[in-house]
Amino acid sequence: MKSEYTIGRYLLDRLSELGIRHIFGVPGDYNLSFLDYIMEYKGIDWVGNCNELNAGYAADGYARINGIGAILTTFGVGELSAINAIAGAYAEQVPVVKITGIPTAKVRDNGLYVHHTLGDGRFDHFFEMFREVTVAEALLSEENAAQEIDRVLISCWRQKRPVLINLPIDVYDKPINKPLKPLLDYTISSNKEAACEFVTEIVPIINRAKKPVILADYGVYRYQVQHVLKNLAEKTGFPVATLSMGKGVFNEAHPQFIGVYNGDVSSPYLRQRVDEADCIISVGVKLTDSTTGGFSHGFSKRNVIHIDPFSIKAKGKKYAPITMKDALTELTSKIEHRNFEDLDIKPYKSDNQKYFAKEKPITQKRFFERIAHFIKEKDVLLAEQGTCFFGASTIQLPKDATFIGQPLWGSIGYTLPALLGSQLADQKRRNILLIGDGAFQMTAQEISTMLRLQIKPIIFLINNDGYTIERAIHGREQVYNNIQMWRYHNVPKVLGPKECSLTFKVQSETELEKALLVADKDCEHLIFIEVVMDRYDKPEPLERLSKRFANQNN
Amino acid sequence: MKSEYTIGRYLLDRLSELGIRHIFGVPGDYNLSFLDYIMEYKGIDWVGNCNELNAGYAADGYARINGIGAILTTFGVGELSAINAIAGAYAEQVPVVKITGIPTAKVRDNGLYVHHTLGDGRFDHFFEMFREVTVAEALLSEENAAQEIDRVLISCWRQKRPVLINLPIDVYDKPINKPLKPLLDYTISSNKEAACEFVTEIVPIINRAKKPVILADYGVYRYQVQHVLKNLAEKTGFPVATLSMGKGVFNEAHPQFIGVYNGDVSSPYLRQRVDEADCIISVGVKLTDSTTGGFSHGFSKRNVIHIDPFSIKAKGKKYAPITMKDALTELTSKIEHRNFEDLDIKPYKSDNQKYFAKEKPITQKRFFERIAHFIKEKDVLLAEQGTCFFGASTIQLPKDATFIGQPLWGSIGYTLPALLGSQLADQKRRNILLIGDGAFQMTAQEISTMLRLQIKPIIFLINNDGYTIERAIHGREQVYNNIQMWRYHNVPKVLGPKECSLTFKVQSETELEKALLVADKDCEHLIFIEVVMDRYDKPEPLERLSKRFANQNN
Repeated sequence: MKSEYTIGRYLLDRLSELGIRHIFGVPGDYNLSFLDYIMEYKGIDWVGNCNELNAGYAADGYARINGIGAILTTFGVGELSAINAIAGAYAEQVPVVKITGIPTAKVRDNGLYVHHTLGDGRFDHFFEMFREVTVAEALLSEENAAQEIDRVLISCWRQKRPVLINLPIDVYDKPINKPLKPLLDYTISSNKEAACEFVTEIVPIINRAKKPVILADYGVYRYQVQHVLKNLAEKTGFPVATLSMGKGVFNEAHPQFIGVYNGDVSSPYLRQRVDEADCIISVGVKLTDSTTGGFSHGFSKRNVIHIDPFSIKAKGKKYAPITMKDALTELTSKIEHRNFEDLDIKPYKSDNQKYFAKEKPITQKRFFERIAHFIKEKDVLLAEQGTCFFGASTIQLPKDATFIGQPLWGSIGYTLPALLGSQLADQKRRNILLIGDGAFQMTAQEISTMLRLQIKPIIFLINNDGYTIERAIHGREQVYNNIQMWRYHNVPKVLGPKECSLTFKVQSETELEKALLVADKDCEHLIFIEVVMDRYDKPEPLERLSKRFANQNN
Repeated sequence: MKSEYTIGRYLLDRLSELGIRHIFGVPGDYNLSFLDYIMEYKGIDWVGNCNELNAGYAADGYARINGIGAILTTFGVGELSAINAIAGAYAEQVPVVKITGIPTAKVRDNGLYVHHTLGDGRFDHFFEMFREVTVAEALLSEENAAQEIDRVLISCWRQKRPVLINLPIDVYDKPINKPLKPLLDYTISSNKEAACEFVTEIVPIINRAKKPVILADYGVYRYQVQHVLKNLAEKTGFPVATLSMGKGVFNEAHPQFIGVYNGDVSSPYLRQRVDEADCIISVGVKLTDSTTGGFSHGFSKRNVIHIDPFSIKAKGKKYAPITMKDALTELTSKIEHRNFEDLDIKPYKSDNQKYFAKEKPITQKRFFERIAHFIKEKDVLLAEQGTCFFGASTIQLPKDATFIGQPLWGSIGYTLPALLGSQLADQKRRNILLIGDGAFQMTAQEISTMLRLQIKPIIFLINNDGYTIERAIHGREQVYNNIQMWRYHNVPKVLGPKECSLTFKVQSETELEKALLVADKDCEHLIFIEVVMDRYDKPEPLERLSKRFANQNN
């Protein structure tokens, strides 16, 4: 690295300031020399992935735990391979910085037919494509680098959505001034008058409500206000439900937690309690088909107070700018406390209070009952969008556990590379992945990166011989829902050093029990447990939701 | 399938008419019921892939042998995973029909936040993204289906580039009239006056030329005019060179073949013969950095007669419409024959006339020398863009062999799924793949689809411990060019039935020899040969070209 301060260094300093300690990606000739900078930079590690889609998923999983993530690819081929992951981060509001190494201005201005282009002399195709799935985009030059880097990173941080930085291969090493002030000085702050107006007009309505409820979703994770939400709940005494995308934002063992709401797929009590609420304090919520039982939520919009990231909407009026954190803090201090007995609260308890392993095949129902007992406080639980997500949504999470799924974007194969990211984001927490065989086949190679980096998550591979979620929706017996059978539990042994993993293939509850016993004690290996189940068995919530999805397609 | 004629049936009939016998892809709930149609359709087989990027590569490889290919995915997640493959097909002019199952008009018109969307109520984001990498796009409805299907398929066929068909999940089963006339009735035909003018004005120039040469490229493959090109060459007696993207369009064992031209990376004779030609009949050529030694071609544009797919450009004038086939046929009948001796023709001979295996490690140089002897007439040789492509470009192909590479788009990992496609396109031809370890890791799972379908290609996996092509360009010793070591030769055994593959790991020439002996005789297995080589060894053309690429980035 040259001694003077350069654009590449500026970019890395800003990323570091936001908390990025790992950059995911794949080398390519338009990013190689910038990679030299990353290698030398103290505080940020390079994580080379097997392919760019996996790198994108890893950056997303990383951001969900770390608060923000980054991925570096080469031009054209690399960035387009990753674009599905960036779209997923956009949909589910995950702040990911996408950096692309691109050809020099000279090559671009001359319209040269160089490799990794469409061969038409144009270099803006991919930039245009990324515009659809990013909230800000920058093409860096020697002149604009500081302003543009700051602008897009602030957008990423504020909006919790991906941004694109195109870094020409001859720009990163050019000189630049050091930043004058911290990046986060530019964030939005609440307006006192707006906050005051909101409290004056809305708090009395909440205090008058007979059946208030707090409904929390993934926005609480993204804006990291779990603690403030807890304060609000405990001060007011209100019951709290979450949506599945925000599962875990509120302690599921808390006596005020009433369950994961999912429209009319919810338990009768939960459905009624939410749908008949006369006041819903809705925090960071998005109502999508996968998380509302196919839009079967029955509550009235008029009763909802929307706490959004930087504004509040209630009774036809918008109060802004007010940050989510300030809104929750204001409400906490102003809403009157109520007694548990007056609020019709039935604390959520999953029905699997006790579990004894039997000498019989493992069913979906029993598997998730068992996993519910396996999860510990502070675990990170990832569940692939398929049988696993719907099965995991019934698990009662212990305190401070985090749940990662992708119910809106629903890109099958996401969670395996996301696990790489989430585990690297905090190596002190135990990460547990539940993934199906069809999903695993999509991105399986990323296990080799986990083995190379010697991280030690626990992976449960549900081998039920095909695309069970698709069978549930349509084509139960169709060949297109079959996949090639793999020796799944051998995969970690082939893709990395044998001594780095412990692998199991279990078919009965007692076999599963033995594997879990090892998994629970071992801290030295990546644990891979292939769990064989029947191809038509599926968790109960999926049974119901899949019928709604099938109807939606008519 | 319902008894009446439907839109889904119409689409499959038109695809079948163009020669499509396989559709690649991955099931998803927005395409499942259309998949039922494919399953019942006689003459088109469904090929389920491990993921959508691989499906896209497979459709591309299929199209390169079959003339056209198709891929079906679901909305959002599926199509974006495949978009890099579609961009590659666009860049290298490969006709691939991209079909996407999308939500119903009702869901779209109501802007519902359904799964596989960005959750913003908009359904046109991905359509807009595909516009950048397709030549025609259609959103089918009950009303427009026949017209729109015909329009985009004709564009695909004419321009040899991808098209997009968005098929709503409630449209495929709606009634429609059968097609009135064949699709290919709509293709461009040559204009007689234009052709006559061209012959009158240009043929005399060619006849007067002292050092004419034919330069042929991948356009000859795409418009399937290899035979017409051969006629032209033999009638005129002119020497023929190809570019590496079009390697194999002219028989490399032919006495008029003078080599694969690559700017100043070519042999001295070839370089001089092409650069100093006073008339170049350029057939389906595109000059890109990878195929011109980094734009070091030295011939004068003024001397070039461009035979393009539907026009000819020469001496500052354009003659159109004239098809490539008609142009070549006209030239064949009108150009005077010359004698071999008058044309300075040195037939290409690779220097590896004899090869004897020795008890020593395998070098890149010796490996490609050996493979040159292994390739037979009619083989399909795929070489991954990396050391393999540059090594393979020196191999003298036997008659009727086809070469598949991706030097312009250069998406690493492309060739493994492309092999699935090319082998399925013609199961009578022997398909041979040369792929590096870094590339293999990107798309390795697709081996399982080959094993499931019981196809029997021969795969050479060059295990040289990392991204050697990147090391050659930049970062020879950098950790980012390292990858996790796999037990590569065990991969086929884990991803499919053990009895379906024969696998080898070879480190010396004599070990390689033994494996080749088996590979040459066996017709019952997929053959997988892991060839261990030194991590810094590389084919000589790559050595030279990588320096140019590094310079291009300054």
